[in-house]
Amino acid sequence: MKIEVVTIGDELLLGYTIDTNAAHIARALAAEGVEIVRRTTCGDTAQSIASAVSEALDRAGAVITTGGLGPTSDDLTKPAIAAVFGREMVLDEEHLAWMEERWRTRFQRTMPVSNRQQALLPAGATKLTNHHGSAPGIWLEDERGRWVAMLPGVPREMRGMLADTLLPLVRERAGSGGRVVRSCTLRTTGIGESHIADLIGAIEGGVGDVGLAYLPNADGTDLRLTVRDVGADDADVLLSEAASRLRSVVADYTYGEDAADLASVVLELCRSAGVTVAVAESCTGGLLGARLTEIPGSSDVVNGGVIAYANAVKTSMLGVSPETLAEHGAVSEPVARAMATGVRRAVDAGAAMAITGVAGPGGGSEVKPVGTVWIALDFRGSVEARRYNFVGDRGEIRHRAAQAALEMLRRRLLSS
Amino acid sequence: MKIEVVTIGDELLLGYTIDTNAAHIARALAAEGVEIVRRTTCGDTAQSIASAVSEALDRAGAVITTGGLGPTSDDLTKPAIAAVFGREMVLDEEHLAWMEERWRTRFQRTMPVSNRQQALLPAGATKLTNHHGSAPGIWLEDERGRWVAMLPGVPREMRGMLADTLLPLVRERAGSGGRVVRSCTLRTTGIGESHIADLIGAIEGGVGDVGLAYLPNADGTDLRLTVRDVGADDADVLLSEAASRLRSVVADYTYGEDAADLASVVLELCRSAGVTVAVAESCTGGLLGARLTEIPGSSDVVNGGVIAYANAVKTSMLGVSPETLAEHGAVSEPVARAMATGVRRAVDAGAAMAITGVAGPGGGSEVKPVGTVWIALDFRGSVEARRYNFVGDRGEIRHRAAQAALEMLRRRLLSS
Repeated sequence: MKIEVVTIGDELLLGYTIDTNAAHIARALAAEGVEIVRRTTCGDTAQSIASAVSEALDRAGAVITTGGLGPTSDDLTKPAIAAVFGREMVLDEEHLAWMEERWRTRFQRTMPVSNRQQALLPAGATKLTNHHGSAPGIWLEDERGRWVAMLPGVPREMRGMLADTLLPLVRERAGSGGRVVRSCTLRTTGIGESHIADLIGAIEGGVGDVGLAYLPNADGTDLRLTVRDVGADDADVLLSEAASRLRSVVADYTYGEDAADLASVVLELCRSAGVTVAVAESCTGGLLGARLTEIPGSSDVVNGGVIAYANAVKTSMLGVSPETLAEHGAVSEPVARAMATGVRRAVDAGAAMAITGVAGPGGGSEVKPVGTVWIALDFRGSVEARRYNFVGDRGEIRHRAAQAALEMLRRRLLSS
Repeated sequence: MKIEVVTIGDELLLGYTIDTNAAHIARALAAEGVEIVRRTTCGDTAQSIASAVSEALDRAGAVITTGGLGPTSDDLTKPAIAAVFGREMVLDEEHLAWMEERWRTRFQRTMPVSNRQQALLPAGATKLTNHHGSAPGIWLEDERGRWVAMLPGVPREMRGMLADTLLPLVRERAGSGGRVVRSCTLRTTGIGESHIADLIGAIEGGVGDVGLAYLPNADGTDLRLTVRDVGADDADVLLSEAASRLRSVVADYTYGEDAADLASVVLELCRSAGVTVAVAESCTGGLLGARLTEIPGSSDVVNGGVIAYANAVKTSMLGVSPETLAEHGAVSEPVARAMATGVRRAVDAGAAMAITGVAGPGGGSEVKPVGTVWIALDFRGSVEARRYNFVGDRGEIRHRAAQAALEMLRRRLLSS
């Protein structure tokens, strides 16, 4: 079964609202083994809705729309799609009565006239119950079995209706063929896309007959494996075989699967090892601390740290000597090491990460260009440090630096 | 001029990645008076790319694509679209030489073979310079003037190329017809959507004949004014009149326009007043420091601070007495005040913000439920503090707390 998704709304088309509904629907359907083959966003006019939906229907025979079911005059989804099916709009007395009752009991007033049009439905339509709002969804099907399901645009209402009402219907139509789309993602860091491609190229047969996508981002490079159109059991076997092949070359760089967050992984390893954590941050200015503490329950591992942005703070709070700063500069191995040891003692932690670097855009030099970052780890008194040259803008350099510090601690915890 | 946007990638279609590129392109083009009439997302196969692009080209005659220009085997945008135009793929020697040189100088190694295909371009294509990565964009045009512009999928690269190279080209083609869509946004914080609506309702004539949208988010409530389909000069006059009307009621809560960031605004005010800044963070764990230091040039204002996550750190590094902690609890006015004063002295700053609260999901109680946050400001020795009750999840509560601390300092700076 193939489905297209059409999301309707000027606010989406003009970019004022990011389209999160489409992604949610795609994930929910993929998990059912239904393939989304295309997604279209169109504006609020009847003509653009009708042409987008009718073209999608011609291609796929099954369409899910979001948006345009509300009471305001720019909500034209129902009449536009009714016209595509050659249906009249008819008043649904039952729904009108339900709406009027709801206004009386819930809002203690008479329903505004503008809401009446929500009770107009295409002839022959089936209502999809909305437990989270007043506009019902609509299911419209022609004699050839081609269908359009219209969901509301408000994400909370859309999600509820999809799960409660539409997915069971789609499941029924998809039958028990049981062909699914499944994917899994390995999250790597500290290794580039082309280096990974070379390593995979060296395995006999690559990752097998499975789709592989490289998704580089500021956390590292995510590797997504996807199998399509196979039985659920086969999918699991194929995926796990492909993941093993992939792991055989990138295991060292892999910190988790799917939505894994390196900060969470590190916190869990610390918790198991009984290690508390401190941070000393210069160019990242609190970002590493923020990443660790955004994880619920981080307080049993994270003690705290120092944002040592000014050199005077590196000296007064972390004990970095003014001579070391003067001789080597703030972005240097001795300073990173002194910061790590200083903060580990100051907040009495088992492990301390320290970051000092040139995040840019200013402040770079020939020997220490923008992107130069020294990261040190003091793990129970044993200190290591490494120089990195990160690419990207200020935000990316800072994010990559925090990620690299976490990775340094992860590797240390695994080897200890 | 009408343009369609086609975003390419299984990760978009399957919902693993939210499509932010499409929204960015739409906003940028609307500001030029160019109308995006439809947006399509298709998967990574050559066939789905070719059919999506060729249909869009038939409808609109002008198409912008994102994604699929990288070095890996799933990047099929160029050959698929070349086929739509009936063009061969040819090696661009100049670009190959540039890439090889870049690998030698920047990464100090030989370019991986897998990168060579980035130098294959459709015959007759024009390269669009990429200042932020190695894959150039492509401009392909047929004898009837129909064109496709291919941009990379990495948001940073896409945005840079759009602004630097593609917008000027589009502007040239769009000619000087001069009907534009313009909008401006006032960014408010510390006031709710319905309160603002009441204030605006009390102005005679509201904001005039201009669209007004309320955009609540974790920073506060943004108010977007939009004029459509008028001449550029009229648009500016209409917008500035509407903005004045709006400001007449929400000026106190307005910290900037459009993409203004409260942290930048505060830094600028500090710079003018000659005030240096410190932070002491418990539940935000570094987030406030990270927000301040993500602004380039923040180092002349921000001295640093302490991430005082554990109570022992509040005592050892900020001088909060164990008795105060025991008597009032960590989330309390006396502790917030002591943290602010403690960090202002410790890092020798003019102003210090301190945050202590219950970010959740655990840790709440009847008297201090999740969302309870105390924020204190020590401004040159004079201390104020306020209790907030933020709604949202852990991430939102932390973000709102950092924002409220910045707003407290902004107001103090304006009144001093």
